Amino acid sequence: MLVAQSGGPTAAINASVAGAIQEAGRHPEVIEKIYGILNGILGILNEDLIDLQEEKRHAIEGLKYTPAAALGTCRYKIDFQKKPEQAAKDMERLFAVFEAHNIRYFFYVGGNDSQDTALKIHEEALKRNYALRVIGIPKTVDNDLPQTDHCPGYGSVIKYNATTVLEVAADVSSMATDDGSCCIIEVMGRAAGWIAAGSILARRTPTDAPHVVLLPEIPFDQAKFLEKVKTTVDALKYCIVVVGEGIKDAQGEELAADKTRLDAFGHPVLAGAAERLAELVQAKLKTKTRTVKLGYAQRCAAHCASATDTAEAAACGESAVRAAVAGQSGYMVKLVREQAAPYKWSTALHDLKEIANVEHLVPRDWISEDGLVPNDKFVEYARPLIEGEVHPPAEGGLPRYVVLEKSPVEKKLPARG
Amino acid sequence: MLVAQSGGPTAAINASVAGAIQEAGRHPEVIEKIYGILNGILGILNEDLIDLQEEKRHAIEGLKYTPAAALGTCRYKIDFQKKPEQAAKDMERLFAVFEAHNIRYFFYVGGNDSQDTALKIHEEALKRNYALRVIGIPKTVDNDLPQTDHCPGYGSVIKYNATTVLEVAADVSSMATDDGSCCIIEVMGRAAGWIAAGSILARRTPTDAPHVVLLPEIPFDQAKFLEKVKTTVDALKYCIVVVGEGIKDAQGEELAADKTRLDAFGHPVLAGAAERLAELVQAKLKTKTRTVKLGYAQRCAAHCASATDTAEAAACGESAVRAAVAGQSGYMVKLVREQAAPYKWSTALHDLKEIANVEHLVPRDWISEDGLVPNDKFVEYARPLIEGEVHPPAEGGLPRYVVLEKSPVEKKLPARG
Repeated sequence: MLVAQSGGPTAAINASVAGAIQEAGRHPEVIEKIYGILNGILGILNEDLIDLQEEKRHAIEGLKYTPAAALGTCRYKIDFQKKPEQAAKDMERLFAVFEAHNIRYFFYVGGNDSQDTALKIHEEALKRNYALRVIGIPKTVDNDLPQTDHCPGYGSVIKYNATTVLEVAADVSSMATDDGSCCIIEVMGRAAGWIAAGSILARRTPTDAPHVVLLPEIPFDQAKFLEKVKTTVDALKYCIVVVGEGIKDAQGEELAADKTRLDAFGHPVLAGAAERLAELVQAKLKTKTRTVKLGYAQRCAAHCASATDTAEAAACGESAVRAAVAGQSGYMVKLVREQAAPYKWSTALHDLKEIANVEHLVPRDWISEDGLVPNDKFVEYARPLIEGEVHPPAEGGLPRYVVLEKSPVEKKLPARG
Repeated sequence: MLVAQSGGPTAAINASVAGAIQEAGRHPEVIEKIYGILNGILGILNEDLIDLQEEKRHAIEGLKYTPAAALGTCRYKIDFQKKPEQAAKDMERLFAVFEAHNIRYFFYVGGNDSQDTALKIHEEALKRNYALRVIGIPKTVDNDLPQTDHCPGYGSVIKYNATTVLEVAADVSSMATDDGSCCIIEVMGRAAGWIAAGSILARRTPTDAPHVVLLPEIPFDQAKFLEKVKTTVDALKYCIVVVGEGIKDAQGEELAADKTRLDAFGHPVLAGAAERLAELVQAKLKTKTRTVKLGYAQRCAAHCASATDTAEAAACGESAVRAAVAGQSGYMVKLVREQAAPYKWSTALHDLKEIANVEHLVPRDWISEDGLVPNDKFVEYARPLIEGEVHPPAEGGLPRYVVLEKSPVEKKLPARG
C-alpha cells in the first residue's frame, strides 16, 4: 500500500496517516508493505517512496499530535483539461511506479483537488485493468468538501482561532478607555467562510467577542459594517472583528487587493483584508484600530488542537484502509453526524464522483439576517468539533513533535524524463 | 492596601495580583482591607475602588492562569514635565482618595511608565508626611526594565512565539517545493528586540527556524538580509524570518512606515514591518512570501503560558506585600538569577530611582556578528524562562478564564472635577 498527503498542511493531517498505518498493520495477510510518498503526487512521479514499517512505533503514534504534513506535501495537479499531454504522461508514470512496487492500495489524504486526483487514478486503474483500490481521506482546514459533515483539520483550526479571539478580547477589553478601540483579526478562507465563522465559538454571552464576523460568502457592505463597529464601540468601548481573507465587495472584487499599489510583477499588492478594514475604521470612525493576521500559524497550531478532530482524523485513516481491504475503491471516507447532542459521529464512504471539484460554502441561513455574524444553527454545528484538548509532549518548554526517519525505498525505474 | 495594574496586559500580570492578594491575606494584623483599582491610575482619580475580599478564593487562584488585566488597565501618565498643572492636580486627588479610604500600602504592577508613577507617589507621600508604603511590581512583555534579570510576562510571550515559529516552520517546510518559499512573522517590540530574539528558542538544530531574526536594536541592512534569505532558501527550500515591529533603517526610520501612502490624518500608513519585508523579498528574490502578524494575540496567549513565568509573577506580588509589611517603600521587586543551570531564581528589591525611565535593550554581544540572529549567550539567558506548561481549565473546548465580580467600594469623595 501507498499513502500520500496533499495540499495545505493541517494540525490533524498526520493523524489520518497514523490511523491508516496502524490499521494496515492489522492486515498483514493482504498488505505486505506500508509505503509512504514524499511530497504527494510529485513524490510518486519522482519515485520517492519511503518505508513506513522502518519507523518506530511511538513515532507513528506521535503523528497524531504532530502538525503539518510529516510525509511532505505539494500542490501539483494532474490537469487533463488544461494540460492533457502532460497529464497523460504523468498518469503513465504513476502506474509505472505502482507496478514497479506492486502497489495495490492507494490512499490520498487531501482536499478538493486531491480527491479529484484520487478519482482520476481510480478510473485509470479500471481502464487499464490494473487491480488497485483507491480511497480518498478528507483533509482541509477550509472545511469546503461536500458530502462529509465536516473535514478533519477544521475543528483544530477553529479551536485555535476561537481561543485567540477569546484572549485578544480579554486584552483589548481590559485596556478599554473612553475613546474605544477596535481589533481586526484576519483568518484563512479565500472562498469559504467556515474558518472565520468558527471564531463565533469564542462568544459565551451576547456581548462577548467576536462582535462582527465577515465571511467571503457575504458581499461586504461598508455602511452596515461601520455602523455595527460604531454601536459596539459605543456600548462596550471595544470591538473585535474577524475577517476571512477572501472577502469581496458587491462587485466581487477582493478587499485585500490594493489597486493603488502594484508589486514588481504589476499586480495589485495584497495588503490583507484586515489592513484594509483597519484603514477604513480609522478613517471613517477615528477609532484606534490594530490588526492580527494569523496566516500559517492557524493551520498547524497543534499545541491547541481539538482532541475530537484528531480522533476523527485518525478514524478516517483507519476506515480508508478497512474499506480498501474489504474490496472498495473510488470512494472518499466521510464523517457522519449520528447525533447532535450529545455529539456522536461515525465514518462512511461516499462516491468520489460526487465530491471532486464541488465546493461546499456556509449556508446563508446559518448566518444572521444582517450578514454580520454566524447564527445559532452554525454554533450548534461547530461547537462539538472543538471539544477536548491535546497536549503534545514538551521538551525545553516547547512541543516535541515527531520527525519521521523517512527510510527510502530502492528505486526501480529510470529517473523521470 | 490598594493594588492596581497599568500599561499593556500580559499573560502573567494577573498572577502578580493574585500573589499580592494572597500574601496580604496572611497579614490581617496590619492589612485590614484589600482593595483593587479599576483601570490603573485613572481608576484612583475616579475613586473606582473594588473590594477584593469579596472575590471567591478560587477566582483569586484562577487569576494565575488568566490573561490580560483582570482589574483593567490604562496608559494614563502623571506627567510633571509636560503637564505640570494637571500633574499637581492629579497628585492632590490621588492622596485625597488614599486618605479617604485609609490606604497605607500601594502596589503598582506595570512597566517603565508605571514604575515612574510609583516613584512619584512614594516621593509625594514623603513630602506630605503621609504614611504610605509604595512597592512597584514589574510587568512587561517587552522585557525592557533595567536591574531585574527579566520581567514577568516575558517568558510567556516568547514561549508562545517560539511555539508559533516551530509550527509555522513545520508547515512551510512540509510544503517545500523547488521554487522555495519564505514566511515572515512580525512580533511586538518597538524599541527593544527581546520579544523577537526569544523566537530563537524554536531552533533545536542549526538548520531549524527561525533563520533570520531582525531586532530593532540593529539597523536594517537590506543587502545582508536578502543574501541570508537567498542562501537559506537555496539550501533548505524555505526560510522563516522573525521581525520586531519597530525595526529601523540606518537613518533610524521605521521600516513599517510607508511614506507613499498617507492615512486620513496625513501620517504615513503603518503597513507593518513584515508586509514591507515581504514586498522586498518578492520583488528582489522572486520568492513566494507570506506573512504572519501576531499582534495582541501574543501578549495574552495564556493557553500557552510559561509555568516559570507565572510562578515568578506570583512571587513578585507576594514579595511586594512582604516588603511593604516589613516597612519598605520606594522599591520595585526584581527577579534575580541565582544560578544558570539548573536555573534558580529569587526576588529582591531595587530602588525605584534607578528603574524609572531607563530602557534596557538586548546587548550587542548577545547577537551574532552579522546581526541576523541572537547568539548562544542570549539562548542561555532565555531558555529557562519558557520552561513548564500551564493548562488553563477548559469548558466547551476553550479556556475558562476568571472574571472578577468587582464589588465596588462605596465612594467617599465628590466626583472629580
